[in-house]
This record gives sequence, C-alpha cells and structure tokens, in this order.
Amino acid sequence: MKQVAVFGAGRIGQIHASNLASLPGVQLRYVSDPASQSAASLAHALGAQVASIEEALADPAVDAVVIASPTTTHGDLIVRAAAAGKQIFCEKPVDLSVARAEACAAAVRRAGVACMIGFQRRFDPTFNALKSRLEDGEIGVPEVLIVTSRDPGAPPVEYLRQSGGIFRDMLIHDFDVFRWILADDGRDEAVWLSATGSCLTDPAIAQAGDIDTAIVSIRTRSGRLCQINASRRAAYGYDQRFEVLGFKGLLAAGNHRPTEVVRMDAAGVEVDNPEAFFLERYRAAYRLEVTHFIEQLQSGGAFRTSVHDGVAAQKLADAAALSFERGEPVTFSA
Amino acid sequence: MKQVAVFGAGRIGQIHASNLASLPGVQLRYVSDPASQSAASLAHALGAQVASIEEALADPAVDAVVIASPTTTHGDLIVRAAAAGKQIFCEKPVDLSVARAEACAAAVRRAGVACMIGFQRRFDPTFNALKSRLEDGEIGVPEVLIVTSRDPGAPPVEYLRQSGGIFRDMLIHDFDVFRWILADDGRDEAVWLSATGSCLTDPAIAQAGDIDTAIVSIRTRSGRLCQINASRRAAYGYDQRFEVLGFKGLLAAGNHRPTEVVRMDAAGVEVDNPEAFFLERYRAAYRLEVTHFIEQLQSGGAFRTSVHDGVAAQKLADAAALSFERGEPVTFSA
Amino acid sequence: MKQVAVFGAGRIGQIHASNLASLPGVQLRYVSDPASQSAASLAHALGAQVASIEEALADPAVDAVVIASPTTTHGDLIVRAAAAGKQIFCEKPVDLSVARAEACAAAVRRAGVACMIGFQRRFDPTFNALKSRLEDGEIGVPEVLIVTSRDPGAPPVEYLRQSGGIFRDMLIHDFDVFRWILADDGRDEAVWLSATGSCLTDPAIAQAGDIDTAIVSIRTRSGRLCQINASRRAAYGYDQRFEVLGFKGLLAAGNHRPTEVVRMDAAGVEVDNPEAFFLERYRAAYRLEVTHFIEQLQSGGAFRTSVHDGVAAQKLADAAALSFERGEPVTFSA
Amino acid sequence: MKQVAVFGAGRIGQIHASNLASLPGVQLRYVSDPASQSAASLAHALGAQVASIEEALADPAVDAVVIASPTTTHGDLIVRAAAAGKQIFCEKPVDLSVARAEACAAAVRRAGVACMIGFQRRFDPTFNALKSRLEDGEIGVPEVLIVTSRDPGAPPVEYLRQSGGIFRDMLIHDFDVFRWILADDGRDEAVWLSATGSCLTDPAIAQAGDIDTAIVSIRTRSGRLCQINASRRAAYGYDQRFEVLGFKGLLAAGNHRPTEVVRMDAAGVEVDNPEAFFLERYRAAYRLEVTHFIEQLQSGGAFRTSVHDGVAAQKLADAAALSFERGEPVTFSA
Repeated sequence: MKQVAVFGAGRIGQIHASNLASLPGVQLRYVSDPASQSAASLAHALGAQVASIEEALADPAVDAVVIASPTTTHGDLIVRAAAAGKQIFCEKPVDLSVARAEACAAAVRRAGVACMIGFQRRFDPTFNALKSRLEDGEIGVPEVLIVTSRDPGAPPVEYLRQSGGIFRDMLIHDFDVFRWILADDGRDEAVWLSATGSCLTDPAIAQAGDIDTAIVSIRTRSGRLCQINASRRAAYGYDQRFEVLGFKGLLAAGNHRPTEVVRMDAAGVEVDNPEAFFLERYRAAYRLEVTHFIEQLQSGGAFRTSVHDGVAAQKLADAAALSFERGEPVTFSA
Repeated sequence: MKQVAVFGAGRIGQIHASNLASLPGVQLRYVSDPASQSAASLAHALGAQVASIEEALADPAVDAVVIASPTTTHGDLIVRAAAAGKQIFCEKPVDLSVARAEACAAAVRRAGVACMIGFQRRFDPTFNALKSRLEDGEIGVPEVLIVTSRDPGAPPVEYLRQSGGIFRDMLIHDFDVFRWILADDGRDEAVWLSATGSCLTDPAIAQAGDIDTAIVSIRTRSGRLCQINASRRAAYGYDQRFEVLGFKGLLAAGNHRPTEVVRMDAAGVEVDNPEAFFLERYRAAYRLEVTHFIEQLQSGGAFRTSVHDGVAAQKLADAAALSFERGEPVTFSA
Repeated sequence: MKQVAVFGAGRIGQIHASNLASLPGVQLRYVSDPASQSAASLAHALGAQVASIEEALADPAVDAVVIASPTTTHGDLIVRAAAAGKQIFCEKPVDLSVARAEACAAAVRRAGVACMIGFQRRFDPTFNALKSRLEDGEIGVPEVLIVTSRDPGAPPVEYLRQSGGIFRDMLIHDFDVFRWILADDGRDEAVWLSATGSCLTDPAIAQAGDIDTAIVSIRTRSGRLCQINASRRAAYGYDQRFEVLGFKGLLAAGNHRPTEVVRMDAAGVEVDNPEAFFLERYRAAYRLEVTHFIEQLQSGGAFRTSVHDGVAAQKLADAAALSFERGEPVTFSA
Repeated sequence: MKQVAVFGAGRIGQIHASNLASLPGVQLRYVSDPASQSAASLAHALGAQVASIEEALADPAVDAVVIASPTTTHGDLIVRAAAAGKQIFCEKPVDLSVARAEACAAAVRRAGVACMIGFQRRFDPTFNALKSRLEDGEIGVPEVLIVTSRDPGAPPVEYLRQSGGIFRDMLIHDFDVFRWILADDGRDEAVWLSATGSCLTDPAIAQAGDIDTAIVSIRTRSGRLCQINASRRAAYGYDQRFEVLGFKGLLAAGNHRPTEVVRMDAAGVEVDNPEAFFLERYRAAYRLEVTHFIEQLQSGGAFRTSVHDGVAAQKLADAAALSFERGEPVTFSA
C-alpha cells in the first residue's frame, strides 16, 4: 500500500487526488493547500486528512507526493520532497527558469528519487497507441512531425501575465510531444529551432506582453523536421492532433469526440466537435498517468517521464521564446 | 444511503457490482451466487458480504436488488424481490416466456416497486445523444429506422440451445431500440412484423435449432418503418449502429473506436475497428444505467425502462420467431 | 467507326448522346424525338442529323440504337430495333409488364442482337470497385446485403401515376443491385421476398395510389439475405449506399461528395452532403456505361447487362408490389 | 471561335490540348513541339495542325497560345507571344530567375495581353470551394494556414538537377496557395519567411544539390501565419491538403479519393488512398482552368491568375531557398 500526499487542491489537484483514491494499492493520506477550505473539502470527499506540506513531508509513512500546486511553487516543492526522500510526481513545468529546473533535476538526482513530470499527453490512449505503433515500425523511422495544438479560448490575462508566455505555458506540451515522437526519447535532438507568432485574438494579450498564435519549426541532428502550430482560440473546441510521416507511411492522431452521432440535413453532414477542453480530452490520460506512477513505484519499473524531460522541454520553450523575440532561429550545440 | 444486493457474480454481475460500489450514496451490501467462490471473491473485492438470496431479501435494510443471474432465474427472482418490497433492476430478458414475463409484470405492479430492465443501449452515450436530439426535433418526426446489430462471433452452442433463439436472445435489444426510437415509448406501436433468417456461419448452430443471421421488417400503426439486420459474426468486431430518417434529415449513431489513430500507407487509409464487444462498447452505458437506477431511487423520479418494456420487447421477439418459423408476417391487433 | 442513333432527346437522351459524341470510334448519326425542336437542338449541338425512328432503323449504316425515350415506348422500340438487326442499349425498364418484357427478350434472342439495359449503377466507380473487390474475394462469399436508396424528393404526382409504382420505378435499380451483388449474376436467386411500405411524405402520393417509403427483405436459395430501404425524400440529398457482409469482413459503398471541404465551427464538424441527385452522382457511370457498350460492340466482348437482367429485376419489382399489396411474402419456385 | 496554339506536346501539353479541343467556342489550331513525332501525333488525334512556333505566332488568326513546353523556354515564349499580341496561358513557373520573370511581366504589360499562369490548384473543386466559402465569411478573416504538400515519389535526379530546387520546383504551388488564401490576393503580404529542410529519402538527391523534405514558416504584414510542409515521398500517394483557421472556425480541404468504398475486416477499417498523383488529383482542375482561360477571353472578364502571381510566387520560392541556405529567415521590406 503506497501512501500519497497531494499538494494543491485546485482543479488539477482534485483530478489527481480522486484518481489516486480510486486506485487499488494506494492510500491517499494527505491533501495540502494554503486554501484550507479547498483542502478540507477534497480530503473529506476522498477519506484523506488535511496536512501542511511540512507535516506531509515529515511523515515517514508517506511514500510519494503529487505536486499540483501553482507553477511558481513547483521547484521549491520538488527540492524539499526530494530532500525528504519522497517519490515525486509533479505537474509541468518543473520551473519557468531553466536554471532553476536544472537545480531541481540535480536535487532529484542527488536524492535518488523518481520525479515524473505531468506530460499527460503521453498517456492519452490515441497518442499512446500511435507511439506504440511507431515503435513497432509500422511506418518506419519517423521523419516529419506536424503538431496542431489549439485551445478553445485564452485564459484570463492575469493568468497569462505570470504564465511565462505562450511558448513556456502552452507549447511546452508540444515540445514534449516533439521529443517523445521525433527525438525518440534521446536518440535524436533539436539542433535548429525557429519560432514566430502574432497576437490575433485579443489586444489585451499583446498588452500583457504575450502572443496568442505561434508557429515553430525544428530540425534535429539527423535532419528530421517538426512543425508546431498553436493558437489560444479555436471556435470549434480543443484541437489536439499530430501526424508523423515515415518511410512507409503516415500515422495521424485525431481528436476524440464525445459521441458518434452523425446528422445529415439540408445544411450538410455533421459530426460532433472534439472534446471541449483538456479536462475532457485528457480525462483518461490523467487517470492512466497516475496509475502508471503508482504501478512503477510498486514494481520498481521505469517511469515514462522524468525531471529531465521537464528540463528539456523547458529549454525548447526558452529557445522558441528567444527565437520569436529576435526574429531569428536558435541553434543548439551538440 | 441505498443498500443494494446483487444476485449473480458472473461477468455482468461483476460489472454492476463494481459500478454500484463506486457510486456515492450506495452501499453494496450483499452478493449472492450459488457459486460461492465467485460470490466470495466479488464480495471481498468490493467490501460487501456474501448472502443467500433468502437472507438478502429478508434483510429490511436492503432497498434494492440487482438481478444478474442466469436468464432462467429472472422471473422467479423478480417475483420474490417484488414480494419482499425491494426495488428491482433486472438484466434482460424478464423471462423467455411472454406469459411468465407478464406474470412478473403483474407481481411488480401489485408490489408497487420499480423494475428497471437492463436495456443498456438506452444509456450508451451515442445512442442516448441521438435520442435526445430526436426529441429536440432536429430531424422532425422519425419515420424510418435502420438497425445494424452484429456480434463478433457466436457464443458456444450449448449457450445457444438454452438461449431462446436469436430473436429472443440477441435481437431483443434491437426490438427495444425500435420501441425506444420509433415507437416513441408507447406513442406508436408495431402492427406488422416480418422476419427471416439463415444459418450461414456454422452448421452446428442449425443443428442446435437456431440461426445466426436474421433480418426483420416492422411497420407501425402510423406507418413508420423499421429494418433490423443482425448477425452472430462480424470479422471486424462488434457492430452496433442505427440510423433514423425524418422529415428534416437523418441522425445516425455509429460505433465507438478505441483510438483515433489513422494510418495511411501503400495499402490504404486505415482507422481502428469498433470496440471489440459489448463489455467494451457498453462500458459507459452499464455504469450510466445503474447510476440512473440509483439516482431515480434517491429522487423518486421516473425510470428510463420498466418491466413493461421487457414484456413488450419479448412480444416482438416472439412474433419474429413465429414469423420466421412460418415464413409469414405477424400482425398485431390494436 | 460505329454509327449510333439515339431515340429520345430528353434529359437522359441528352446525356447519352453527348457521351457518345465524345467517344473515339463512334459517330452519333441520328437523334429521333417526336418533339422535333428537342431533336433538332440536340442533333445540331452534337453534329448529328434528325431522323424519324423509321428512317434510323432503315439505314443499314446504323450499327446500334440507344433507347432513351419514355418508358411506355421501350418495349416496342426494342422489338423493332431487334427486327432491324440493330445492337441495342435501352434505359430501364424493359417494360412495366413482365410479360411484355419477356416478349422483348425473346425478340432480342431471335434477332441475335445485344440488348444492354441501363442499370448505370453497375458502372458507378464506387459500386463497381466494390463489386471487383468482392470478386477478388476480399471478404469471402457475400452473405448479407443492405441497400439504402433515397431520392432527395418525389417526382410530380402525374409522373408517379404512370410510373408503375415505387417498386417498379425506383426500387428496380435496387433489385438489380441485389442480383448483381448477392445473387452473383445468376449463381444464386431470390426464393422469398417480403415488402411493405407507407406514404409518409405527401398524401397526394397516396391519392395517386402509390407509396413513398418502402422496405424489402429477400432471402436467396442459398440463404443469403438482403434488405432494401427506399424513400422518395431525403432532406440531405441523394443517398445511394450499400454494404455487403461476408465471412472475412464488410465492404460498404458510400455516397460521393462534391468536394472534400470540412468546416469546424461552434456548431460542429461539417462535410458536404452527397451529390445532389442521379445526374450528378451517376455522371461518371453514364459515361462509363455507354463507353462499355461501344467497346463491347467493337471487341465483341460480353456486355455487363442484358435484357435478361431487365426482365429479372422487373419480376422482383412485381413480386415486391404484390407482397406489399397482400401484406404477405412472395415465394419463387426454383 | 477562339483559335489556340499549344506549345509543347508532352504530358501537360497533351492535357491542355485535349481539354481545349473539347471546349465549345475553341478551335485548337496548332500544336508545336521540337519533337515532331509527338506534335504530329497529338495534332492528328485532336484535328489540329502541326506548326513551328514561328508559324503559329505569325498567324494572325491565332488568338491565344498555351505554353506547356519545358520550364527553360517559358520566359522566351512569353516574351515572343506577347510581342505577337497573343493572349497567353503559361504553365508555372514564369522563369526560374525572378529577374527574367519580371522582364516577362514587363513585356506582357507593354503588349497589353493577358498572361494567365498555370496555378491549377486554384481551380481544384475542393480548394476553390474552400476559397469561395472563405470569401463568404464562413469562418471570418483567415488567420492561420497550414499546407501539406507531398508527392508520392521524387522525379529522376536528372530532372531535379535542372529544377531550381524543391522550393522553386515543388513549393511554388504552395507559395501560390499561401498568396491566394492568406495574403488574400494582394491585400496582405509576406514580411518574414523561414525555411529549413533535409534530404531524407535518397542520398542521390543531396548529391544533386537538393533536398526532399522542407518546412516553411511565413508571417504576413498583418500577423497572419502560414506553415508549409512538403515532401518528395509519401508511401500512401499524393497528399494535397490545407486548412485555414479563422475567428469563427476552421475550413480544411482534404484529398480526393478514387472511390468511396470502405472495407472493415480483422485488420481495421480502410478507405481508399488519395488520388495517385497530380494528373489524377488535378484532372478536373486542369480542365476548369483552361475553360476559365477561354471564357475570360470570350467575355473580357478578369483572369484568376496573372503573370504577377507567377513573379510573386517565384520571389517567395527564392526567399525560401535563400533562407534554407543561410539558416536564417528572410524579411521583406514593404
């Protein structure tokens, strides 16, 4: 029985906590949140206790912590949890600063603990099936990756101001997809990256110093090519697709739809829009990723993501932000 | 808190029991099964107790029973549960004999209890969305219904021998779909039914006195038309679709696919087959139907299916079997 | 160079004439139509001459005639063209009376001429590809055929009054599809047919003694099963599909769409409706069928349809009309 | 009656010549080709005469010329045809040198003749329908364009050596799509372009100084964004798609398929690959573009493309080649 503490009782904390509570072999022991009301309510609903972070980390019965608190606290909590010898699952990003993220990675390494990062797309049934089929060689070596990543609408401008910008806040998931699919988990790597973008949906976003639409090109050491297109607005919902071209063909991962109803009338043939947003689209992925975290804790197996993946995606996000600001590509030395 | 006993610890009993155990406001109190090992194992996994049917029905704390035992026991258990004043959820069919099914209905009526029948398709997200949109008038009055119902493969011949035949065992779900969609829950009704069929997949099925492929035509009092095509074999998996034509257009309900991966290679463009079989396709439906059962128990609201629906579908199945045997249509007097 | 006369300068006559005029190795010599204005205009546009039917049949240079005149004239023209030793292409039906159609077949046989019947669906690229793949054994022996056949709207009631009714006028194409796909061009045959229908779209159709919605079930000697559903009204356009189930899988033939544009907006994901009606959907088929007719004339090869196919489809249409009227199935003796 | 001479009797010359010969109001008068056998054969088949370019240009009866000769001859022929006062349709590109292309444009302007360039995608039924719907405001102002452009296989290396490279030879069509869709025919324009690429399919292509896979990003003056991905190899055929994101939604143009057959078997659900290559995919487009050319000649209306479009696409191709060589973006002054 693994004892787990969840830090953060907000939207994503609630998802992780309730998924953890329903897993066999897991006891959700503590919920921590400065908002004591949220912590109490979540803990009560799931049969856990409220505790401060200090208390949770000090309790030797706690095997693992799940960090689902605001971005600015991630780095500090990783370092403290590592120091306390806890196994760690942390929502992306490790830290908005690559330097601090690397410090976290060092702390994790020193402590010899796991630190899985919440790149939940790697657990999405469709994306994951595509990845497996790629590894089975269905289309040969992947050569070109096209990623489409569109949110239904932008978050509040106050959020954007502290988000680190579109490349660090939103495209970090796409950079992880690039690494997962095309850089083949370390067997290849980006050597050239060019990004540009615009503010097209709301002038308030530009006033906050951000953009809402971005396109990125990446070339890897071995010449593989990746394009990412991202937008903070899609009138039709949450659009999360990618396609991979290889020697023998193409594998494309499409959106999930809520139902398979088709309507045909005078206006045309219509099917459902994609799942509305990330909570719907990645519902299964969120469950599967904490299940994986617990199972690997139990079995001692390898985790699908590590703090290193968090750092690497962060570096690509930084490079994209820099490329956009300068209007020039960024190159990476080997 | 509703206290529930589940009768039957086989495949479908396990599904209902585990769905019930995960619902808030429900205590899964007893599991009953003559196979005491199965009952014990299921009860243990879900924190329930093993009890005989007598014990469960005698316990005044039990509010409701879920009947998931073999078909031949349904009628008897409904009558006994009704006599004990328990609310009832029973898997289809009520009974393979219409006369006995009507006796059950009478017993339920006398007892004043609910008796929801497990026509889980009414809870399938796609079918249910179609039904709602139909009621919203999206295509006007439904006039024509085409139902496709194919199993990936036939059950063992020993099962088929006691199944009541393809019309009673397999098409009963399709007859319920007909009633739900086209007979509009009682506002219209079948007046003419013609069925035929063949044994095409395995001579052993014919030797057992059954067929494996069947087609049925139904006309309603108001002239609406329904076609059902069913097969015990589909090489590509479980095929569960229907389409409804109305004045303003068509609503079609397609199969669910496990993933949204598309492969394009020299051979063509390929997507996933439908979900493999009923446990996969109707996973959500099974959960939603017991959720509905409990919610209506709690709220006192109307149940989406009743013992009457079970009887009515059984009558259509009987008519189809008769039509097939005689090679002639069956007509129903108003 | 094959010399051809076209009888009938209406909608379908124009299509055949202009397709013929564009084929290498063909001279469109005559156009005949009692409406001399139409004949003159069509002949002028395509570099042909106007002639009476007598003149055309009397001209020894004429190799073949294409009969695209009103249904009531087909039988007479076939007999006269056969007597004149001309090769014949005739629009469906041979004749609304099976007896007269059989007399035509006898006349054709006696004359030793070809008499291809205009079942253009056999030349539709999609339907034809499906048929070829079936013959290649892609899904094994075909066992079940489901045909959907819906017109966007009913023709004028005056037309319906002389049409022979929905089974003879509209479903005759579907009966030919049944024979082509499931009866395997003579290697199997219908032994049991049950039809019903309703007037659902316009009371004027009922007053004209016809129905607008029909469903038919057919069983063949070897136990194969066919369902046809037809409607004179589909708000979304012309719906022409069929699917064939075999041992190894399913082959389905869908509608053609004018374009491959997809729109995604707040309302859903939308693609084009099917091609509007038969002139659009079967544009390629009409061209391919006269091309085939000419090519087989030139090469002496076998024609894809014959007067026998016209007679056989007519018999099924008669049987369906009878079954509907009596409310009983029709059986065919071997 | 418009008299037309076709220069070039190769693959594309044959297509244009035979489309022209079938149009009402056109007389295909001359075919010119240094390969006199090809010219004679094509002229004979279509009822035209063989003539030298000098003879054709000297004949005052000739209204228009269609230039379908090798790329290196385009510029010279445009200048000579313009000097002779002929209306011009010329295959892309105008010239591989922007300077010479601009000289052609000047010659055309001085002569006051039309010079339509063969960007046939603007006449593809799907692409053209998308463009019309865009202009109708279906999704609001277009903001993001994603273009996928993949050939089934690379042309011979000897061809590639003289082709001007992938950006000028292959992506020039995509640059025209960018201008047509996103630059809105002159109301906006590229200000920043970044290209990269690799040789992934065949080392011989690298040895010939070219690449086979390329990705391009473009930003316009108003901030609109375009991504193009192109490959000389797609195992599944010719892949020609684009999608446009606007305020109100997305319009996507997909591939055309030869048939609408769907197969479902144990391996999955399969539909046809896209049309095999450009001759198949753009068959309708080629016919529609010369029809448009002739119609505008007859009516005096505006042509959908001009020599200016040819020059502008060439400039983008040059910029992409330069960006790729330098590894840096190219910016355009207003």
